[in-house]
Amino acid sequence: VSGLGLVLDDLPSEEVERLEALHVPLAEAIRELVSAAILTTVDDATVRSATETVRELTAELRREQAGGTAGVHHNPEGRAWNWGNAAVGLRNAAAPPLVMEHRPDGTAYGEATLGPAHEGPPGLAHGGIVALLLDHIMGVTASRYERVTFTGTLTVRFLRGTPLGPVRVDARIDSAEGRKVVVVGSLSDEDGITAEAEGTFVVPRWAL
Amino acid sequence: VSGLGLVLDDLPSEEVERLEALHVPLAEAIRELVSAAILTTVDDATVRSATETVRELTAELRREQAGGTAGVHHNPEGRAWNWGNAAVGLRNAAAPPLVMEHRPDGTAYGEATLGPAHEGPPGLAHGGIVALLLDHIMGVTASRYERVTFTGTLTVRFLRGTPLGPVRVDARIDSAEGRKVVVVGSLSDEDGITAEAEGTFVVPRWAL
Repeated sequence: VSGLGLVLDDLPSEEVERLEALHVPLAEAIRELVSAAILTTVDDATVRSATETVRELTAELRREQAGGTAGVHHNPEGRAWNWGNAAVGLRNAAAPPLVMEHRPDGTAYGEATLGPAHEGPPGLAHGGIVALLLDHIMGVTASRYERVTFTGTLTVRFLRGTPLGPVRVDARIDSAEGRKVVVVGSLSDEDGITAEAEGTFVVPRWAL
Repeated sequence: VSGLGLVLDDLPSEEVERLEALHVPLAEAIRELVSAAILTTVDDATVRSATETVRELTAELRREQAGGTAGVHHNPEGRAWNWGNAAVGLRNAAAPPLVMEHRPDGTAYGEATLGPAHEGPPGLAHGGIVALLLDHIMGVTASRYERVTFTGTLTVRFLRGTPLGPVRVDARIDSAEGRKVVVVGSLSDEDGITAEAEGTFVVPRWAL
């Protein structure tokens, strides 16, 4: 499936784990910095000096870097990683990140904690962040981690506002006929479902 | 509309502008840092030292900070700001950010540049990021910046993958009857439309 840009990578799983252990703390630290920058009320000089330090850090990290984007990699051991992914990327400080579990029965479950960077209406999650989490878990559910699928249509019905804080998403395959897979999903807070979704995913002809 | 958490703020517009001029460069610098952290291949010691520096910066910015989230503020001069917003927040390094223009004829137009932090399939924008941009511009179009609306349903139809890079979004009101406003929108790259959307927005009874 090289036409899709999936990269078969020689990196042994052990080295993938080592790199994640090294880089995840950096992403987590930057995620906290993003929140702090939204809410800080420190004096101008401190903001300017922080800006300068962040620029220096960026230049240091860019002294050596991979070209393009993080992409989706897998190795001969069957380990896959997509560190830059906007929903689940472990090295992406802009990802919530969504942490997922795929059950043997084909259903999937995920958790995320939404904070100041995910706000839409005051105190509530942005509808687009709700859609991001649902789109991701539903796409993965359609693919069952074993086939390629493309999102055809995604419909999200917002039942009420989703307060910032811990949320969970659930998804399951509703029907699968030929190349068309229909997945239903929901996003919940501790008081129940706040948004429901239905998605139609398509398995490309060449992947059947 | 205090029940919605909108904050009427004494801050003069001049001070709002001054704060934006101070904080936008910090958010932009952090946005670059997010990308650099995804792609860097520098040695372990540099990654660890960067992590430590980011933590120190966060602690400095948190010495004084607003409580809760950024929220949506407006002042008696009619200036509004939502610095933490997940799609357009000027102080939110995790926002793409979407830059919008609302035309007198009621249509809206916006631009964003998607990068390594917005990836879904290799080299392509995450479907959820496409949904985030569409949800935002369509909601604003429904509200016309002058009334409160809630998103009822959002349907996104993905026509093809959206390459990372510059994108634009367009939206217009398709119909408005009673409390129900239907908005249509699209997201395009330089070769044309990649996703279409339809959203149903509801004006709460008390806001009519």
